[in-house]
Amino acid sequence: MSKLGLKASLMVLAVAATGGASSSALAASALVRNPAEFNSALARLEPGDTLTLADGEWRDFQIVFTGRGAADRPITLTAQTPGGVIITGRSNLSMAGEHLVVSNLVFRQGSSPTGEVLSFRKSRTERANFSRITGVVIDGFSKPNRAESDNWVAMYGHHNRFDHNQLTGKTNAGTTLVVVRDAEQGLENRHVIDSNYFGRRPVLGSNGGETIRVGTSHASASNSFTTVTGNWFEQCDGEVEIISNKSGGNIYRGNVFFESQGAMVLRHGDDNLVEDNVFIGNGLPNTGGVRMINRRNTVRNNYMQGLSGSNFGSALTIMYGVPNSPLHRYVQVDGAVIENNTLVDAREMSFGAGIDAERSAAPINSRFANNLIVNRDGRDPIRVQGDMSGIAFEGNVQSPAATEALPGVASRKVTLTRGAGELLLPQGLKGVGVRPDLTFVSREETGVSWYPKLRPVAALDSGSVHAVTPGEDTLTQAIAKAEPGDQIELQPGVYIVNQLIGLDHAVTVRGPAKGRAEIQFSRPGLFEIGVGGSLRLSRVTISGALAPDVAGAAVIRAGRGAAGYQLIVEDAAFEDLTVNRSFNVFAAGPGTLADRIRLERVTVERATGSVIAAHTETADLGTYNAEVVEVVDSTFRDVTGPVVDLYRGGTDESTFGPRLTLTGSTFERSGRVGDDAGVLKLYGVQRAEIRDNRFIDSGAPSFFRRVGEPVLLWSGNQSKGTPDLITNVPPTEVAR
Amino acid sequence: MSKLGLKASLMVLAVAATGGASSSALAASALVRNPAEFNSALARLEPGDTLTLADGEWRDFQIVFTGRGAADRPITLTAQTPGGVIITGRSNLSMAGEHLVVSNLVFRQGSSPTGEVLSFRKSRTERANFSRITGVVIDGFSKPNRAESDNWVAMYGHHNRFDHNQLTGKTNAGTTLVVVRDAEQGLENRHVIDSNYFGRRPVLGSNGGETIRVGTSHASASNSFTTVTGNWFEQCDGEVEIISNKSGGNIYRGNVFFESQGAMVLRHGDDNLVEDNVFIGNGLPNTGGVRMINRRNTVRNNYMQGLSGSNFGSALTIMYGVPNSPLHRYVQVDGAVIENNTLVDAREMSFGAGIDAERSAAPINSRFANNLIVNRDGRDPIRVQGDMSGIAFEGNVQSPAATEALPGVASRKVTLTRGAGELLLPQGLKGVGVRPDLTFVSREETGVSWYPKLRPVAALDSGSVHAVTPGEDTLTQAIAKAEPGDQIELQPGVYIVNQLIGLDHAVTVRGPAKGRAEIQFSRPGLFEIGVGGSLRLSRVTISGALAPDVAGAAVIRAGRGAAGYQLIVEDAAFEDLTVNRSFNVFAAGPGTLADRIRLERVTVERATGSVIAAHTETADLGTYNAEVVEVVDSTFRDVTGPVVDLYRGGTDESTFGPRLTLTGSTFERSGRVGDDAGVLKLYGVQRAEIRDNRFIDSGAPSFFRRVGEPVLLWSGNQSKGTPDLITNVPPTEVAR
Repeated sequence: MSKLGLKASLMVLAVAATGGASSSALAASALVRNPAEFNSALARLEPGDTLTLADGEWRDFQIVFTGRGAADRPITLTAQTPGGVIITGRSNLSMAGEHLVVSNLVFRQGSSPTGEVLSFRKSRTERANFSRITGVVIDGFSKPNRAESDNWVAMYGHHNRFDHNQLTGKTNAGTTLVVVRDAEQGLENRHVIDSNYFGRRPVLGSNGGETIRVGTSHASASNSFTTVTGNWFEQCDGEVEIISNKSGGNIYRGNVFFESQGAMVLRHGDDNLVEDNVFIGNGLPNTGGVRMINRRNTVRNNYMQGLSGSNFGSALTIMYGVPNSPLHRYVQVDGAVIENNTLVDAREMSFGAGIDAERSAAPINSRFANNLIVNRDGRDPIRVQGDMSGIAFEGNVQSPAATEALPGVASRKVTLTRGAGELLLPQGLKGVGVRPDLTFVSREETGVSWYPKLRPVAALDSGSVHAVTPGEDTLTQAIAKAEPGDQIELQPGVYIVNQLIGLDHAVTVRGPAKGRAEIQFSRPGLFEIGVGGSLRLSRVTISGALAPDVAGAAVIRAGRGAAGYQLIVEDAAFEDLTVNRSFNVFAAGPGTLADRIRLERVTVERATGSVIAAHTETADLGTYNAEVVEVVDSTFRDVTGPVVDLYRGGTDESTFGPRLTLTGSTFERSGRVGDDAGVLKLYGVQRAEIRDNRFIDSGAPSFFRRVGEPVLLWSGNQSKGTPDLITNVPPTEVAR
Repeated sequence: MSKLGLKASLMVLAVAATGGASSSALAASALVRNPAEFNSALARLEPGDTLTLADGEWRDFQIVFTGRGAADRPITLTAQTPGGVIITGRSNLSMAGEHLVVSNLVFRQGSSPTGEVLSFRKSRTERANFSRITGVVIDGFSKPNRAESDNWVAMYGHHNRFDHNQLTGKTNAGTTLVVVRDAEQGLENRHVIDSNYFGRRPVLGSNGGETIRVGTSHASASNSFTTVTGNWFEQCDGEVEIISNKSGGNIYRGNVFFESQGAMVLRHGDDNLVEDNVFIGNGLPNTGGVRMINRRNTVRNNYMQGLSGSNFGSALTIMYGVPNSPLHRYVQVDGAVIENNTLVDAREMSFGAGIDAERSAAPINSRFANNLIVNRDGRDPIRVQGDMSGIAFEGNVQSPAATEALPGVASRKVTLTRGAGELLLPQGLKGVGVRPDLTFVSREETGVSWYPKLRPVAALDSGSVHAVTPGEDTLTQAIAKAEPGDQIELQPGVYIVNQLIGLDHAVTVRGPAKGRAEIQFSRPGLFEIGVGGSLRLSRVTISGALAPDVAGAAVIRAGRGAAGYQLIVEDAAFEDLTVNRSFNVFAAGPGTLADRIRLERVTVERATGSVIAAHTETADLGTYNAEVVEVVDSTFRDVTGPVVDLYRGGTDESTFGPRLTLTGSTFERSGRVGDDAGVLKLYGVQRAEIRDNRFIDSGAPSFFRRVGEPVLLWSGNQSKGTPDLITNVPPTEVAR
C-alpha cells in the first residue's frame, strides 16, 4: 500500500470510528504497530486526530490513552479494521482527558491485571470527561480466579458515553459495568449507557455479580443523572441484581432483559425512573422484574412476561423499609409511582417483601394505578406481607380474577393478542397496562455487527460417538482425543485408568446397554472437571479398589476454575470407596460452582466419604459450590460421611442457590460416624425438596437456615432407626 | 562429528552408564533425537545395547522403556552427556522387563501426569525385575497442586536397584520413593536403595510426606528384604515419618539423616534392622531418631546428636501397642533389641509413647543395653509413660546422671571427644554406645557429581536495595523489577497501588527510619504471596480506605501453591480495614502453607476481619495453613473477627504444626461479634505459648484440642471485660 493510500484509508476509518461526531477531513492520522509507536504517536495528537492500531494480536498491552480533543474534533483511538485488533494477555485500557473516543477493539483471551478492563480514568486524579467508548467487544476477558474481582468497565468523570459495545462471558466477581461516583469528580455524572449488548454472565454464586451498578450506598442520597437506555441484557445471571441502582435521578428506559436471572433493583437513591423496559423470562428460574425501595421512584409502562422469580426477585417487589434507615440499609418506600405496567404470567408480585423487626416501615404516599396483571393459568401472583394502606390502588385490572389481598384491582377476563411490537396486548382494554405502541429494541441493534453475540457452548451429547474397548488406559486415550460434546461408548469389560482425567469441555462416558463396563482407577481421582468441562456418566460401575491410600480422594472432582458446569450421573454404581478416610463420589474444589449436579438411579455401596461433598466455601462470604443438586431414585448404603453435604454460609442475600431436590431414594447405614454425623447436611441451602425417601439406620438429616427465606419441603419420607430431621426452619410440609 | 567418532563416544558412555555391570564391547548403540526415533530404536534393542537420548530438552515425553537384557549384558537407556538431557513438561519414565538400566537423566520444570515419575512397571502386569536406575536427578518435578499426590519413584517387582540418584524439592503430597508390594508380584522384593541423595523436602502440612515408604500395612506381616543403605537425607521435612517402614526383614544401614524433621519409623512389620545410621539434628525443631513398634526389630549402633523431637518423634521412641492389633494399628513391641546406640544432647527419649485406652500393651521380651546417653547441659531426656518391666535394661550409661525412671542405667560423667569419623565419642568408656570406628558416608559420595545438591533459595534481604519515591503505582513498578531477595526502601509519603502485587520470590518492603510511609490500595488485596514468594514488611502504615467494597478482602494473602514461605511484618500499622465484612490483614488461601508468619510490634486498628486468618483446610484431612505463627509485642483494637484464627482438623498424626507463640500483646474490643465470636480461635493447634498478653473487652479466647498431644502454655495473661479461656486441654501453666 502506498503511503498516500494508507493515509486515505485511515481517514475513512476515522470518520467511521467517531460515529455521529463530526470529524475534520484535515485531521492527522497515525497507524501504529506496537506500544512504543503508540506512545510516541500519542504525544503528537491534536484535536480531530485518529490513532489507529494495526490489525493483529496486541498482547500484554496496558493502553493509556490521554488527550484533549474538542467537542467537534474528538481524538480517536481505533482499530485498522473493526474486529481486526485483538488485545490479549494482561491488558486493559484507561483514558483521561476530554473529548476522547475509543472504538472497535476486541479484548479476549486474557484479563486485566488491575481492577478494570476499560477505565474512564488514568489515575485517581486524571479522569476522562465528555468521552466515549463505542463498538468495543470484551469477550470472556475474566480473571482466572473467579473470586478475584474486577469491573470490566468503570465510568468515572461526567458526560461520558458507553454505547454499542458488546460484553459477554464475565465469570469472575465484580460488576460488568460500574458508574463510580464521588464528590471530588462531581456527583452529577450525566453518563449515557446505551445500545450495548450485555451477554451471558453465568451465576457467580456470591454477591458482586451485578451487570450494571450505578453508585454506592455512601453517596446514594445525591443524583447521578445517568441514563441507561436501549441496552439488551441476555442471560445476565450473575446475581439477584442485574442492575443495582445506588444513586438518584437516573433513567432506565427501553432496555430488554431477556432470560436473565435477577431483577432491576432500585437499591438506593431517589427520583429514579424505570420506563418502557421489556422483561422476558420465558419461565426460567429466578427471572425477575423491578424491586423498589426509597423515595419518589417511578416504574411505568414496563412489560414483563413469564417471570418466575419470587420474594426479593419477583416480577414487582415493593419492600418494607427501616425507620430512619442508615444509607446502606433500606429506606422506606415513599412516593412510589407504579403505573401502566403489564405483567403476564408472573409467578409472584411481592408487596411488603423483607418485613421483619428491623424492616418495619410500610410504603407511604405511593400510587399503584392502571397496571394490568394477567395470569393465563389462573394463578394469583399477588403476595402481600404487611400494611399496604400507604399505597393508593386504582384502575388496575387483574385477569382472570382480582386478588382479595389488595383494593383497587378489578377482576376481568382479558384476552391477549400479539401487538405490532411482538408484545402481548389486551383486547379491548384501554389505558391499562403498557401503551400499545411499546416496541422491543432488537438484539441486532445493540452491540456491534462484526462480532458474534451468542457463542454456544458445546452441550453434552452434541458431538460424535466413539467406541472404546476395555483395557489399561484405553479410556484415558479416548477422552484425550474427544472433541467438545463427544460421547465415549464403553464395551463390556474392565477399564483401568492411571491418570486423573481432566475435562475442559463436555464429555459423555456411557457403558453398554447390555453387559457391564467397570472402571477402576489408580489415582486419588478419576475425573477432574476444569474450566469449560462438563460430564455425563451413564451405565457404568466404578470401583475404588485400586485407588491409593490417600485421605480425601474422590471419583469425580471439580477443580480450579470450574464453574457453570453440569455433572450428570445416571444408572451408575460406585463401590468400595474405602481405601482411606473421606473417599467421596464427588467433591467440589474451593471456588468452584456447579450449574447442576444430577444423580439418577445411582447406587453407592461402601464409601468412607460423601456422595456429594460441596462444602468448601466456609469463609462465609456467601459463596457455595453447587447451584442445583438433584438426587433421584438412588440408593446409598454404608456411606460414612453425610451422603449429601452442602454448605452456603454468610449473610448476604445475593444468590438463589444452592437448591436441592432429593426424591425416591434410600439411605441405609449412612452418616452415622463422627463428631458431626448425619445422613444429609444442608447448611444455608435456599430451597430443599425432600420427598418420598427412606432413611434406615442412618444419622439424622439436618437442614440449617443461615440467611434469606429458605424453603424446606419435607414429605412422604420414611424413617427407621434414624433420628428425626434436625432443623431451624419450619418445613412447609411435613408428612411421614 | 564423524559417524565413527559418534559410535566410539557412545560406547564409552554405555560403559559408564551401566556402572559396575559388565558390558559387551560389541553391543550396538543408538542415539535418538525425538520420541519417534526412541520408539523405533527401542524395538531393535538386544542384550548389551545402549539407547542414548541426544542432549537437549525433551518436553512432554512419557518414556516407556522395555526390553530383556541379560545379567551380564543389560540394556541401557542413558543421556548423551550426564546432565545433558533435560526432561520437562508432562513427562515420566516407566520400565518393564529384565536387566534394564536407566542412567544420567534430569527431570525438572514439569511434573508427571500419572502417579509416578520413575516407575519400575509399565502396567499393572508388566514390571521390571533385576533392573536399575542410577544417576538420575529429579529436581522440583512436583505437581503444581500441592494436595495432588504422586510418588516420584515407585519400585515394583524384585531385585531392583535404585542408587546414586538425586531427588530434591518435592513439594506435593506422596512419597519421594515407595516400594510397592503385593502377592502377585512376589512379596520378597530384595530391592537395594543405596547411595542416593534425598534433598530438601519442605513440610507438606499433612500425611503423605514420607521420603521413603517400604510397603503398606496390609501386607506388612510379610518380609520385603529391602536394603536401604548409604543414603543421605537432608532437610527431609515432609512429615513425621522420614522413612516409614511397613514390611518385615528390611535393613536400614549406614544412612545419614541430616537436619531432617521427623524420624525413621518402624511403623509396621517385624524383624527389621536399623544399624550404623547417623542422625544429626543440630537442635533444629522436630528432628527425631527411631520410633519402634512391632516384633523383633533391632536398633543398634546408631549415632544421634542434637535431636530436638519429642513424643512420637523423639530421638528414640518405644510405643505402647494395641492388644491383638489389626494390621493398620499398633502391634505391641515384642523382642525389641536396642543396643549400643549413642544419643548426644537428645531433647527426649520416649518410653511408652502413645499409651491410651486403646494402646494399652506394654513392650515385652525386649532388651535395652549398652546405650550411651549424654546431655551436655545436664538435662535428663528420658520420659517414661507406662510399664517398662518388659524391657531388660543393662549396661547403659547416662551422663551426667542416670534417670530415676528406669533401671539398668548407670550415672557417669562422660567427656566426649571428636573421633576419626567426626562423631563424638566418650573418653575411656568401652562397649557402651556406638563402636568407635563408625563413620559418616559423605554427602559427596551420594547422588551424582555433575548436578548441584543444594540449591539455595534467595532469602529475604539477601539482594540489593532500591529506593522508591511516593506516588501512584511507583511501588508496583519497583516490585515488578525487583530480583529475588531485593529490598524496596520507601521514602516518606503516600503510595497508591492499583493492582494486586504478586510475589514469586522473596521481597522486603521497608519504610523510612524517620517519617511515615503509607500504602493505600484500590484492589481487594495489596500483596499476594505465590509459589516461591516471601515478604518482609517493615516500618509502614497500611490503610484499607481505598479498597473496594468487597467481602473477604485482605491486605496480604497467600495464593495458589504458596508453601514454605515467610511472612514477616514488623513495626507496621494497619488501619481502616472496614470497607466491608471480613477485611483481613492476612488471609491464607486454600492449600497454602506458611513456614512462618511473624508479627512484631504491629498495630491493627479497625478491621472487620481477622489479623491472621489461616483456616481454609476445613476438609479435616490433617492439613493446615501455617506451620509457625508468632505474634509479639503487638496491639489490636476493634478487630471484628478472631484476631488469630488457626484451624487444623482431622485425626491423623503426621504433622508438627501449627504452632503459635503469642506474647506481650494487647487485644482491645476484638472478637466480640457473631455466632462464633472470640478473640483467638485456635483449633487443632499442636503447640500454643500464650504469655503476658492483655485481653480487654474482647471475646473469649479458645483453644480446642483435635488430635495428638497438644501443648498449651498459658501464663501471665491479664483479662478485663473478657470471658475466660475456653479450652478442652489442661493448660500446662495457668497464671493470672
